[in-house]
Amino acid sequence: MIYVTRRSHFSASHRLFNPKFSDEKNVDMFDKCANPNGHGHNYYLEVCIAGEPNRETGYVIDLKKLKRIINEQFVDKVDHKNLNVDVDFLSGINPTAENIVIAAWKQIVPHITEGTLHSIRLHETENNFVEYRGE
Amino acid sequence: MIYVTRRSHFSASHRLFNPKFSDEKNVDMFDKCANPNGHGHNYYLEVCIAGEPNRETGYVIDLKKLKRIINEQFVDKVDHKNLNVDVDFLSGINPTAENIVIAAWKQIVPHITEGTLHSIRLHETENNFVEYRGE
Amino acid sequence: MIYVTRRSHFSASHRLFNPKFSDEKNVDMFDKCANPNGHGHNYYLEVCIAGEPNRETGYVIDLKKLKRIINEQFVDKVDHKNLNVDVDFLSGINPTAENIVIAAWKQIVPHITEGTLHSIRLHETENNFVEYRGE
Amino acid sequence: MIYVTRRSHFSASHRLFNPKFSDEKNVDMFDKCANPNGHGHNYYLEVCIAGEPNRETGYVIDLKKLKRIINEQFVDKVDHKNLNVDVDFLSGINPTAENIVIAAWKQIVPHITEGTLHSIRLHETENNFVEYRGE
Amino acid sequence: MIYVTRRSHFSASHRLFNPKFSDEKNVDMFDKCANPNGHGHNYYLEVCIAGEPNRETGYVIDLKKLKRIINEQFVDKVDHKNLNVDVDFLSGINPTAENIVIAAWKQIVPHITEGTLHSIRLHETENNFVEYRGE
Amino acid sequence: MIYVTRRSHFSASHRLFNPKFSDEKNVDMFDKCANPNGHGHNYYLEVCIAGEPNRETGYVIDLKKLKRIINEQFVDKVDHKNLNVDVDFLSGINPTAENIVIAAWKQIVPHITEGTLHSIRLHETENNFVEYRGE
Repeated sequence: MIYVTRRSHFSASHRLFNPKFSDEKNVDMFDKCANPNGHGHNYYLEVCIAGEPNRETGYVIDLKKLKRIINEQFVDKVDHKNLNVDVDFLSGINPTAENIVIAAWKQIVPHITEGTLHSIRLHETENNFVEYRGE
Repeated sequence: MIYVTRRSHFSASHRLFNPKFSDEKNVDMFDKCANPNGHGHNYYLEVCIAGEPNRETGYVIDLKKLKRIINEQFVDKVDHKNLNVDVDFLSGINPTAENIVIAAWKQIVPHITEGTLHSIRLHETENNFVEYRGE
Repeated sequence: MIYVTRRSHFSASHRLFNPKFSDEKNVDMFDKCANPNGHGHNYYLEVCIAGEPNRETGYVIDLKKLKRIINEQFVDKVDHKNLNVDVDFLSGINPTAENIVIAAWKQIVPHITEGTLHSIRLHETENNFVEYRGE
Repeated sequence: MIYVTRRSHFSASHRLFNPKFSDEKNVDMFDKCANPNGHGHNYYLEVCIAGEPNRETGYVIDLKKLKRIINEQFVDKVDHKNLNVDVDFLSGINPTAENIVIAAWKQIVPHITEGTLHSIRLHETENNFVEYRGE
Repeated sequence: MIYVTRRSHFSASHRLFNPKFSDEKNVDMFDKCANPNGHGHNYYLEVCIAGEPNRETGYVIDLKKLKRIINEQFVDKVDHKNLNVDVDFLSGINPTAENIVIAAWKQIVPHITEGTLHSIRLHETENNFVEYRGE
Repeated sequence: MIYVTRRSHFSASHRLFNPKFSDEKNVDMFDKCANPNGHGHNYYLEVCIAGEPNRETGYVIDLKKLKRIINEQFVDKVDHKNLNVDVDFLSGINPTAENIVIAAWKQIVPHITEGTLHSIRLHETENNFVEYRGE
């Protein structure tokens, strides 16, 4: 069993808030991240596939195929976008790193047919990252 | 003469467009960066001061003072902000990296009293950065 | 279940040695790290919390709270310090990366009340790091 | 239980292909990586040892010893080499990252006598890496 | 005047040697880099354009155009290639970092029509890089 | 003219203070860096040589030779050392980054006989670095 990881990048803006909260409570909870006009990040997404290398190719999964899946199902839909309003699969979801990585999993997992999707890690800044393993 | 550099970080959103252009021309010119709802970046700002080390301290400039100037005059005003609408000194300016770095220079240069401001470099992504030397 | 990680930084000095060893044995065992006057590092500490995102906030844990816990319980006590003599909870402990990361765990784990402390990773240099999972 | 990791570096060239495939099939499968004259990478190898810190030293394993094992058994044999023709233990093996990391495991594992070899991670580029845990 | 830099990446193999030298002299001069079957690197190329931002766009140069020039004139011709045999504009040239960066300059400079080409920096490893300013 | 840079690494401890200052003034001036028992850093040193590539080798300077000079004249004397007490050429000097980089220049410049020493950059942390050009 080998774990193969492909890193991708996207730049996006977001605002963290709960529409059911008052403005004060949103600021209390989300601080600077609740700024009404939003802010943004350079995100790095690391998608990890587990599997046995194919005997003929030595690949668990062709990384070109994996890159295409990641781009078509996730990165192209969030890159240079506002995560609060531009992304159908994030509609009604507060775009915390936790919620984004779960959304990435749901978008990508149906398309992985070689090996199995093991984990997705999302870096929001150099100091903050989250990981989801589908559990 | 020693060149001393302090790196700072901020996260912000922006949209690139010229209000005098048509929507088509903005997309043609700024591509994905013209997305009406914006996108964002983790920016790194490197402020470089040139000067001779003080004989008593061995410092060109106390980096704690430099950090305070950078934060008060620039970083606190752009961090977790939308650069198109939240920042007074960027009002009416298309927030390209070029224009942001010039604005940072104007904000910071009046406050440098030890050494002289030599250059400011702004990283927008791992692959794109700009530098201004006040010339 | 999401794994949320916060990275922190501190600069510290240390000397590796066992007071029960002879000088020769300390040099034999710890080589350059046994230099009597010490040396130092820029350390990076990655604290990982596992938990389910809160439905109302989308956070496993508010990273501002986690940052405050990490700073108050650990980073503020080791940053710009000599790990052999300045840190009460390292008293009598040889400050190898292994022993530092265990000490960080003991300092931080009682204060984690949202999610559970999953792992702590400590980078001593670009080439050396250790991880502890409380096992 | 502590997980101790040592990162090493080597520069090597390789060509990905299966000698049983036609040229067309090799290009179809391995794309640019099938270029007959090869290409190359700066590889980073992260070797992780799991164990309990020795009470007298505070080390799971002396990293100088681990570095020597990694160099003698693996890095010195692949650094500044062509992985298709210069490396005896890769003879007849298509040098994908997956196959290289398995070969690294086989080379290193017999020599780990303090702690146990837990995992080896190999970075081929900033965006691609693989991990093997001996399973 | 603003200095705008775009970073690109390519993976290539090379062998350093002078065909007029004996094998011994090549090993003496180029050491491991003279390995007859070659080795390789992940190269990073930083192309810096100097100019004044256009008043209507705020750009010194549209980075999409710059990226296209860099790819068409240089990166696409060296990526996943053997620099000794696969690249017409390196024919007969010993592919040291110094010689590669000069070749990159010659390839790219005729195509820069907005601003002027100020410098090109080439990173061969994390520890080695060269810069050329056309002087 | 090509600018060739070699990056080196060392780990060291130091304390910033002026023995002519009172304890209060040292804390006021150097803050946490005046901690009597010291602290430390992972330093990166970038030594840049300017020159024309040799026609026979394509090298401005053989980086193996440059590495040897840097190690013998500087890195071996500061690595895993206390910069206040262990280093003869820093004796009586407050080891600020500014003063260390000037000392590195003085140590290295007499030994550069191919090309000329153009600049030395010293990174003290990810956020602080200094550069000296011998002026």
